[in-house]
Parts: sequence; C-alpha cells; structure tokens
Amino acid sequence: MNRDDALARDAQDPLAALRDQVVRHDPDLIYLDGNSLGMLPVATRDRLAHAIDQEWGGELIRGWQHWFDLPIGVGDRLGSSLLGAAEGQVVVCDTITVNLFKLAWAAMAARPGRSVIVTDARNFPTDRYVLEGVADHRGGSVRFVDTDPVHGVDAAALAAVLDDDVALVELSHVDYRSGALADLAALTKQVHDGGALVLWDLAHSAGAVAVDLDANDVDLAVGCTYKYLNAGPGAPGFLYVSRRLVDGLESPIRGWWGQQDPFDMDQPYRPARGVARFLSGSQSVPGMYAVDSGVDLLGRAGLPALRAKSLALTTYLVDLADEWLSPLGFELRSPRDPARRGGHVVLGHPDAYRIGAAAVREALVVPDVRPPDLIRLAPVALTTSFTDVHDGVARLRDLVAGGSHETIDVSSRRVT
Amino acid sequence: MNRDDALARDAQDPLAALRDQVVRHDPDLIYLDGNSLGMLPVATRDRLAHAIDQEWGGELIRGWQHWFDLPIGVGDRLGSSLLGAAEGQVVVCDTITVNLFKLAWAAMAARPGRSVIVTDARNFPTDRYVLEGVADHRGGSVRFVDTDPVHGVDAAALAAVLDDDVALVELSHVDYRSGALADLAALTKQVHDGGALVLWDLAHSAGAVAVDLDANDVDLAVGCTYKYLNAGPGAPGFLYVSRRLVDGLESPIRGWWGQQDPFDMDQPYRPARGVARFLSGSQSVPGMYAVDSGVDLLGRAGLPALRAKSLALTTYLVDLADEWLSPLGFELRSPRDPARRGGHVVLGHPDAYRIGAAAVREALVVPDVRPPDLIRLAPVALTTSFTDVHDGVARLRDLVAGGSHETIDVSSRRVT
Repeated sequence: MNRDDALARDAQDPLAALRDQVVRHDPDLIYLDGNSLGMLPVATRDRLAHAIDQEWGGELIRGWQHWFDLPIGVGDRLGSSLLGAAEGQVVVCDTITVNLFKLAWAAMAARPGRSVIVTDARNFPTDRYVLEGVADHRGGSVRFVDTDPVHGVDAAALAAVLDDDVALVELSHVDYRSGALADLAALTKQVHDGGALVLWDLAHSAGAVAVDLDANDVDLAVGCTYKYLNAGPGAPGFLYVSRRLVDGLESPIRGWWGQQDPFDMDQPYRPARGVARFLSGSQSVPGMYAVDSGVDLLGRAGLPALRAKSLALTTYLVDLADEWLSPLGFELRSPRDPARRGGHVVLGHPDAYRIGAAAVREALVVPDVRPPDLIRLAPVALTTSFTDVHDGVARLRDLVAGGSHETIDVSSRRVT
Repeated sequence: MNRDDALARDAQDPLAALRDQVVRHDPDLIYLDGNSLGMLPVATRDRLAHAIDQEWGGELIRGWQHWFDLPIGVGDRLGSSLLGAAEGQVVVCDTITVNLFKLAWAAMAARPGRSVIVTDARNFPTDRYVLEGVADHRGGSVRFVDTDPVHGVDAAALAAVLDDDVALVELSHVDYRSGALADLAALTKQVHDGGALVLWDLAHSAGAVAVDLDANDVDLAVGCTYKYLNAGPGAPGFLYVSRRLVDGLESPIRGWWGQQDPFDMDQPYRPARGVARFLSGSQSVPGMYAVDSGVDLLGRAGLPALRAKSLALTTYLVDLADEWLSPLGFELRSPRDPARRGGHVVLGHPDAYRIGAAAVREALVVPDVRPPDLIRLAPVALTTSFTDVHDGVARLRDLVAGGSHETIDVSSRRVT
C-alpha cells in the first residue's frame, strides 16, 4: 500500500499515456468526479475551437450541409464503439431527460393493453419524475421495484412487480449512488418473458462498462455524454431504439428533424424511417463534435482495456479505503465484488458533506457528495492513475484524521 | 442607386462599427442569411474558448456552482434586453421544438373544457407537427387559419376560426417565408377576448423587432437563438411564460431541473415555483454563454437602433430589387410596407434554387432558398452594411443577367 506500489502499477498500465491527453490546469489536483463531469480532452478543446471559428465563423449557413448528419453519424460511431449497437439505432440529441420522455411515451403507446411503468424506487430523480409524468398523461401508473441500496435491482425484486399490466420496465444500468452494475442481460430477458419492453438508462455506464445492446436484445436505452464520454457540461444526450421496433414507435414530440424530408416543408408529418424519427429540432453542433471527439478517444483505447483498468482502479481504491478510511468511520456502500460495480465507488460517512467540501478546498481532491451521507469516488480509466488513487485516498485520510473538515459551513448544500 | 449612395448611408450609420465585431474569414463574402444562422461575434468566440478551456477544463465539476443558474440568468437578460419581459419569465433551455411541445401541452391542460389548437396553415413545419402531436395526444385537434402568403395572419382570418372550443392559438410573430410581421398586440387581445391562450413563436423576431411580451399581455412564447441572437448552430432555445399564469401550468416533461430542489433527490416531483418548472435536464454550458454573449452585443446596440437600421436596410434592398431584379423575373413576396415586415425580404423567382446555389458558388453572396421558388435575403442590422446590400443585389443582378445559374445541378435540394 505504499506509493512505490502505485507507481509500479502505473508503469505497467497500457493506458497510462491517455492521462496526458486531457487538459490539466493544476497538476496537483486529483479529480475523482469524472462520473459527474468528465475532464476536457485536449483534442476536444482543439476540435471545438475549429468548429466554432472555422466552421460556424467561416462556413456559416453552408456548414449545415454536413452538420445535418451529425446526430446520426455520431450516434452510429458511439453505438458501434461503446454500446454494442449496429448502425441506424443510436442518435445523439436533446438531453437524457427529454430522450427518456420520448422513449417512455413511445413504449407505452406501443403496449396499449398495459398501463404500468416499472422502475427502481431508488432511481435517479429525473427517471422517476419523467416516468410518473408519462404514466399520468397516459392514464397509467408507476410501480416501484424495492431494491437493495448497495446491490441494486435483482431478479427476485423485479419478479415481485412484473405482471400483465406492465408495459415498460426502466432501470439504470449502473446505480448513480452505489455504483451497482445491474445484470442487463438477465433482467432484459426477464422483462421480455413478462411481455414488457425494457428501457435502460446508461448515464453511468456508457463508456465505462460493456453494454452490448444488440447482443442482449435490448429494446430502448438513453444516456448522457458529459460523464464517461467527456463531452462537457450539458453536452447532448443520446438514445437507442432497436431496429426490431423502431418503425412501430412514434415520438410524442413531432419535430421537423424527425420528418421523412425535413426540407419538404409543405408536407404533413410523416415520421422518418428508423431512429431519425426520434429527432426533434436543431442540435448543438459544438455539442455533437464534443461527443464525437470523446467517442473517438475512448474508442481508440477500446472498451475492454478501459473496463480492465477501471476494475483495477476501483479495486485498488477499495483496498486502500479498507486500510486507511474504515478506521475513520467510512464504510463501503458499493458492491465488494468488482464484477458487480460500474466505474465508481461509494463510501458512507456521517460527515460526508463536510468531508467532500474540505477535500476540494484543503486537499485538492475532488470527490462527489450525495446526500445524506455518501461520497462518490470515480477513478476514471482515461484520466486517473493508480498514483492518483493512492494520493487521493491518502489525502482524504489525512484530512479526516486531522479533523480539518469539521469547521466547514454546511448551509449551502448544492452538489451535482 | 449608385455605390456612392450606399457608402454615404454607411457613413451615417450609428451602428456601422458593429460590423467589425463578428468573425470574417472572407472579406468579399456578402452574407444575407443571418436569419437562418447569425454570424460569429468575436466576443462569443473568445468567451466560448474561455468557458471550454478555463471553466470546463479548469473548474471541472466545481463550475456547476455558477453554471447552474445560467438558464434563468441568461433568460432574464434576454427577456429584459430584447423581449420586453420582466425577470422570472424567460428561461434558455432545450430546443424551440421541445419548448413548443412543453408550452402547448401545458396550455391545453390549463383549458380542460376546450380541445382545439389554432395555428397558421403556412406556419413552419415543426410548429404544425408539434401542435398536431399535442392535440392528438390530448384527444383534441388542430384548426388552421387560412393566411395570406405575403401578408400573413390577420384579424378577419383569425375571427373565422375562433370559438369556444379553442384552447390555444399559436402563431409566428414573423413569417419564416414572407417576413410578414404579425400584429402581436391586436391578435393577442383578439385571442384573449375569445377565451383562449396565445403562444407566439419568436424564431424570426427575437433580436430583430420589438416584441414587448409583458406590455402586450402575452401568455406564452418560444424562440431560438441561432438566428438574430448569433448564438451559433444548434444553440439552445428559450421559452417565456407570463408570471400571471406560470404557477398554474405544468411541464409534461418532469425533469429534475424543474423540481423545487433538484438536489434533494429523495423527494417526489414538486414543480419549482415560477418559470424554472419548465426546465428539464442539464443544459449546454457553452450554449448558455453563446446566448448571453449575443444578447449582450445586441443589448448594447439597443433594439430601437437595430430595428431602425433593419428597416432602412430592407427598404433599400426592396428599392434596389425593384430597379435591378424585377426586370429579370424577380417579384417581391414580402409586404411592401416596411412596418409590416420583420428582418428579412423574400423575392420569388421560378429559378430560385439555381440562383441561390449559383449566388454562393459564383458570386460570393449567401442568400437562403425556400422551395419551391423563394429567395430570402436578410440584411441584418448587426452585421450588414448598406454597401453589402448594394453589392449583393448587384451581384445577383449580374449573375442572373449573365445566365450563369442555368447550369446548376438541382438534384441535391437540401437547404436550411
């Protein structure tokens, strides 16, 4: 557990050089929050500067001749590189919230005899809120799976709520708090056996773990790109619709971009063939390039190598936490089995908020805090070294052991 | 009509210096399509570079402490500078398509005894499509106003379709084809007298003409920022909800950003007070800064000065077109009365597509073409000089007189 051991791990890391491909203004900062907002790749900064100055500034309206295809083109590259999705099934557009609304609505409409949406009672708020809205609008209801706060949703819990009224099951692939990795293959099959459609939220899994949407026969999925895809704050979301289903589904938001020929403006609405029907309006061109650049960087590293490093990093982090942080009142709230984890680790501590704030201000470690008592730590394969993990946990240890977090003002609780 | 006259007009133009505040890679290019995609302000390029490199790259997740307020803060500045809206009524978010969906839905839900949405039969496709979708989903229907292709919607046409079944009237303030400026004050009153709510689409008016939402008692409005607000390709949309109504309206898309306390994640959905309830998910931070920068630039010029110059520019353009282009088969398809026009002028010509394509390729003039036979010309107050208008129309004249457009291939018809 000494620093030389961390340095030795870095020396053997085949992805070590990637760490230098992101912008680092403060070399002493240890950033462990890439699962909230990924770091800025140097290539993305340069590509955005070019897109803004040369394309927008220079091509002006003529740029739309090639920008117009970005939501589908970038979606195809994202799908094939990181989601196990063949082309024509992924588009990059809107936000994950809006995409979830569109797909949940479409799924309910496609199961007219069924009126229930099932989701995880502990799911991210926007998932619960959007689904309750869709259910209300369509005269249905949401039924919650009771899940384990550490291990997440399992087959028995799901079986207890599945019946012939269930139209759609929506679950997060990786739990945003505990980091638990759901068994996507088995749960998808279980939902299908019950006659419902499945919609996976990939916010905390896209770019971090294998998803294999096609191979697992997934129906629908949504995700965001500002976490492991490193596309920047508020970058566009994405959605996946299986080609088995897409031409039988309709978007509730009938925008001109989802029309068969957006430029034949005298036509009535006729949904485009394929996943393009879930487009609505003009999408951020810089946002598209940022996603493309992040996908390119991750795709060149390769998801198997990224996942292998991620597992090594989180396992190392858990080992260090057991040794150094447990005696200080921290406890592991993520699955201990690495195969059951996504890309982050959660520790519980009664003083989580103060510790998180003090870590940033006094120890140059950036974790993430989730009320009431969770500290999320994401050592991201692309941007974090084993030495970062070693030093980050050591700094947290010294901070809490020294008690310097105890004076932090807790009146402002805003976290993201 | 000679060039010295144009130069003299420029010499007396109090806004002339603004023309140098946008990026110009090709000084010979005459850009007359700022109503499709506004040019790139130098200040915006610099602000985006800073936001990307220093804020995303340097602040990382800590940036959300101040980014989180941008949709409301930028909305307030946009509202007060350019829309005549007091604070707390405008948010910058999502796309105009998604915002139109949210507000049309909310309006229908707020008028439960009424089931009809009225809109212009010639409205932009996304308006018609979205409204038909909302009406379908809610068991209602859309009724179309029959409008004049040049002069747009008027009181008599609207009176013919208003009755006690109408919940919502949605109209474009400036017609995307003819440029006709609707009488927002009178039509709003007429809609209210009929007991319906009004929703104005400001896509072609925000930043170009006075809107005065509060003074005219408007209920709802949506708009985009990539045209006269110069925020770049696919920049975020905005929406306005009158404070008279907002706490009685609900968004159909219940996202966590529209919740009273987005960070109290164990709560059920409780819509935020005020217009924030129409937020859904995380918004593009660079997009917010681009809007803010464009609003700042226009706000400093002042809408009265911008509108005065715009009227002078379009009047000059019409005079030149009468003199030089009418003999070549062009005819004015915008209102001749300047007070009835927005910021652009439309000319009809049977060979519009070929002329538009040839103008870009051979004459370095960028107009905009709308099938089947319209050429839109937008001399924008911020970025166009009188000399640009003179030279642009002269180049079109010489191009068509010389017949060099006749060889253009028309097989690819994509225009934006």
